[in-house]
Amino acid sequence: MSLFSVDFKVRDYELDMQGIVNNSVYFNYLEHARHEFLLAKGVDFAALARDKVNLVVVRSEMDYKASLTSGDNFQVTVQFEQISKLKFGFRQQVIRSADQKLMLDALVIGAAINAQGRPFVPDLLALLGQ
Amino acid sequence: MSLFSVDFKVRDYELDMQGIVNNSVYFNYLEHARHEFLLAKGVDFAALARDKVNLVVVRSEMDYKASLTSGDNFQVTVQFEQISKLKFGFRQQVIRSADQKLMLDALVIGAAINAQGRPFVPDLLALLGQ
Amino acid sequence: MSLFSVDFKVRDYELDMQGIVNNSVYFNYLEHARHEFLLAKGVDFAALARDKVNLVVVRSEMDYKASLTSGDNFQVTVQFEQISKLKFGFRQQVIRSADQKLMLDALVIGAAINAQGRPFVPDLLALLGQ
Amino acid sequence: MSLFSVDFKVRDYELDMQGIVNNSVYFNYLEHARHEFLLAKGVDFAALARDKVNLVVVRSEMDYKASLTSGDNFQVTVQFEQISKLKFGFRQQVIRSADQKLMLDALVIGAAINAQGRPFVPDLLALLGQ
Repeated sequence: MSLFSVDFKVRDYELDMQGIVNNSVYFNYLEHARHEFLLAKGVDFAALARDKVNLVVVRSEMDYKASLTSGDNFQVTVQFEQISKLKFGFRQQVIRSADQKLMLDALVIGAAINAQGRPFVPDLLALLGQ
Repeated sequence: MSLFSVDFKVRDYELDMQGIVNNSVYFNYLEHARHEFLLAKGVDFAALARDKVNLVVVRSEMDYKASLTSGDNFQVTVQFEQISKLKFGFRQQVIRSADQKLMLDALVIGAAINAQGRPFVPDLLALLGQ
Repeated sequence: MSLFSVDFKVRDYELDMQGIVNNSVYFNYLEHARHEFLLAKGVDFAALARDKVNLVVVRSEMDYKASLTSGDNFQVTVQFEQISKLKFGFRQQVIRSADQKLMLDALVIGAAINAQGRPFVPDLLALLGQ
Repeated sequence: MSLFSVDFKVRDYELDMQGIVNNSVYFNYLEHARHEFLLAKGVDFAALARDKVNLVVVRSEMDYKASLTSGDNFQVTVQFEQISKLKFGFRQQVIRSADQKLMLDALVIGAAINAQGRPFVPDLLALLGQ
């Protein structure tokens, strides 16, 4: 089964003075891919935020393997897993398109609270069909 | 002995649609604090980059404890440690000034290569006086 | 009478591959200085946004005179002026601290609508004491 | 003749607390579209920067007509024009895909200097075939 992934191309404003994509920008890539993943499952992050259901990151682990640079095309994959009753995780990779090289390996762990202060994870899991 | 730290204030453009500082922005905060730490030790990241000595992050672990929001003042601390012959680490915390609440706890691990392709870590350690 | 101004220092993540502050970042600097100006006058942009009073930029003119780079300290000034019944303006400059050199000259024009869809400019002017 | 344009989709990290794309982000969109335009003409901004030929923005005028928000698809157009012997301009528009609504109208004026300190504009014009 193929993983969910989103196609990207490096934009020059994402490069820092070293001429490589700045470390913080990978967070942006991962977040956008997660939101697209959720959207594909019918979970609209923006609509949830407007309804005061806030999905938040509680931990991230990122292994930087190599650096993206100007003109690179790449994919960001998303793999969902339940971590606990209250937490969910996303295993994510950044893969350079030209040679399928793994550039970044990440685990992002999130939690969610709805407007009434109740954990939203069961609803999220139901929506994700797991 | 007091830790090295840099004072910050949240800027509204750093907030996302949830009205809190976006997760990726903490990476910016940590990086700026690390560069200020290095500068205070006589290590100029920008000058090194111009000399093709690239300090790069190879791994980050971040635990998000609570969210900064508009108007918050906070400090970012930096604690250096040698990880191995080739790697160095920074333990960093984001602490809200109003109540000294720990907002983020991080470990950022780096490596460095000089223009001749030799590890730069021994030089870095010498410069940092350790 | 001295102008309102906010002190900044360039952060390395704001530099692009040319080793200078990326053009888009000046917009961030100007916005933060405007919000600090408003706050000093008792107008809290974030609180207004939560109350659905949205201050929005409708036009910007920016003249880039010279480029900030790593380590530069600078000030961003803010001068308010009424443009029309429905619009207000901010004349803003970015001035490098070391030599008082003008780096950027800008005019940012805004409008505001409150939650009931009425123009908020009269209220804003009253708050700004003009 | 159709204009050069680049397709984009709003990413949630680009939204600010008002739930709309932050003003500074449009600069990023415009820059990326300009670099793609140049690349399509055989002018590689990143390669030029490495060769110390710096293309810099000297003035921008931006009229914000309406706000992009989460999920919006849009196009950024690029139209090149010579302004003077030393300056070139880009007329750019941001157009929402769903209804072809004009969201932003911009004029970005640039200059260029090569490594020897000579103006690069004639070379740029030759490359652009004008």
